[in-house]
Amino acid sequence: MIAVDWGTSSLRAHRLGPDGKVLEKREAPLGILQIQGGDFAAALESQAGDWEAAGETTILMSGMIGSRQGWSEASYVECPAGAADLARRLHPVAWRGKTLRIVPGLVDRSGGVPDVMRGEETQLVGALPALGPGRHTICLPGTHSKWVRVEDGRIAGFRTHMTGEVFAVLKQHSILGRLMSEGPDDDAAFGAGVDRAREAGGLLHHLFGARTRGLFDELPAASLSSYLSGLLIGHELAAEDARAATVHVLGAPHLARRYLQALERLGRSAAALDPDAAAAGLFRIASSPS
Amino acid sequence: MIAVDWGTSSLRAHRLGPDGKVLEKREAPLGILQIQGGDFAAALESQAGDWEAAGETTILMSGMIGSRQGWSEASYVECPAGAADLARRLHPVAWRGKTLRIVPGLVDRSGGVPDVMRGEETQLVGALPALGPGRHTICLPGTHSKWVRVEDGRIAGFRTHMTGEVFAVLKQHSILGRLMSEGPDDDAAFGAGVDRAREAGGLLHHLFGARTRGLFDELPAASLSSYLSGLLIGHELAAEDARAATVHVLGAPHLARRYLQALERLGRSAAALDPDAAAAGLFRIASSPS
Repeated sequence: MIAVDWGTSSLRAHRLGPDGKVLEKREAPLGILQIQGGDFAAALESQAGDWEAAGETTILMSGMIGSRQGWSEASYVECPAGAADLARRLHPVAWRGKTLRIVPGLVDRSGGVPDVMRGEETQLVGALPALGPGRHTICLPGTHSKWVRVEDGRIAGFRTHMTGEVFAVLKQHSILGRLMSEGPDDDAAFGAGVDRAREAGGLLHHLFGARTRGLFDELPAASLSSYLSGLLIGHELAAEDARAATVHVLGAPHLARRYLQALERLGRSAAALDPDAAAAGLFRIASSPS
Repeated sequence: MIAVDWGTSSLRAHRLGPDGKVLEKREAPLGILQIQGGDFAAALESQAGDWEAAGETTILMSGMIGSRQGWSEASYVECPAGAADLARRLHPVAWRGKTLRIVPGLVDRSGGVPDVMRGEETQLVGALPALGPGRHTICLPGTHSKWVRVEDGRIAGFRTHMTGEVFAVLKQHSILGRLMSEGPDDDAAFGAGVDRAREAGGLLHHLFGARTRGLFDELPAASLSSYLSGLLIGHELAAEDARAATVHVLGAPHLARRYLQALERLGRSAAALDPDAAAAGLFRIASSPS
């Protein structure tokens, strides 16, 4: 089969064997925001057209390709949901005389305000077998971090935190960025930010400290970005359920390291999951009874 | 005397009588960020040169004109501080053969991380006589909101919240702004944001709801900005001391109304102070024994 993880900034296409093994993988900077004129069919053809021509008939995609800004909008499935629930609600799209399918996103309405994910549900489906049955807490850090409760192989509910995006806009567009200079990660400054997040005053107050600590030379300009990162991740962690026995972190190595570091500092048990779980998730969904 | 309130975006010059009464007032969009080539002397001359020529010898200024980006940097005075403490630390600058003086800013180091204000200390000195002796809590909403504890006519301490700036950068530069359209203030959406801030999940999570409530048509595009404002102001209030008998709000009418509305919704006693307090503050400082 052909398994495509298609997000905002990149397209990752995999050709999988009958056992789910990745036979070939291709990655291109063809995220949905980079596609000229919305010609998603041509973009997919450039990456996986030869696989289709060679006889592949099952083509499954996940990620922002199923959003309103993507190829065709796939609706959201309500939590709790697992691989079989997603498989029952695949969204069909015509391509080269065949029907490819897009995995729907998830919505959790249990928090009063609806929360959504799109793409992470497939990564989770790919990662869950490694965790086994029972209850688990998974954190997927990123622009919009997800904290996910899993119960017996299904996604019970989740919350999104805008941590990564708030970090980026404050650094680029607020007064906080003006004192900052580029520098390597500063683990001590990051840790100081995580610690600060546990004190009184609230996030909006703590943020101002990323300016004043620079003004008063308490932190060098090259360390302020790490401090700001620690503040924001610290506040994200403070808002999440501290009762989880272990927080499983599923994310790109650099960011996952930050979260593991912060969790460790707070005395929580944490473990990294293989971040390359989308292809496995697409295979599991394609293999589920629908 | 000549009393000048000189901030980031505007210059307000007042000519005061011997009793502090405002004889004449001039306002110009000559904030420190608008001054070409840093020629502050010429900008002041354009607004108050004739008053100086007419014989005024006491010239006092407050605000960002005393910052590193201003005319000449005035240092910070430690809290607690009142009018007399500020008067003892005025920062001299030569102008037209005379010496004008800049009121220093304040620093509060009691919170572990230094916090600063510049300009608000003078507004506070102008507003305090109306409050009388004892303890008071004053909120000065804005780009960087200040929450100030006053004890017997002196500023005991304060905390800054980046509420206004975070609102602006999220609206202009984050995904939240993409679903928003311009519209009149929506008091119900603002109130819903204030209420949401009291629930679990934290600010970084609540912010994402300003997207999903738009995506799911729970709030119209023209109301999302009011909702975001309510979320942020609600989190600012949640972080501040709820024990204050009355919160005195000193700010521009539109913003002060928002804060009064939110405080009322939280069941707190709140009252507006006259926002035009800088000239009175400069007069009080000039009249203090130094």
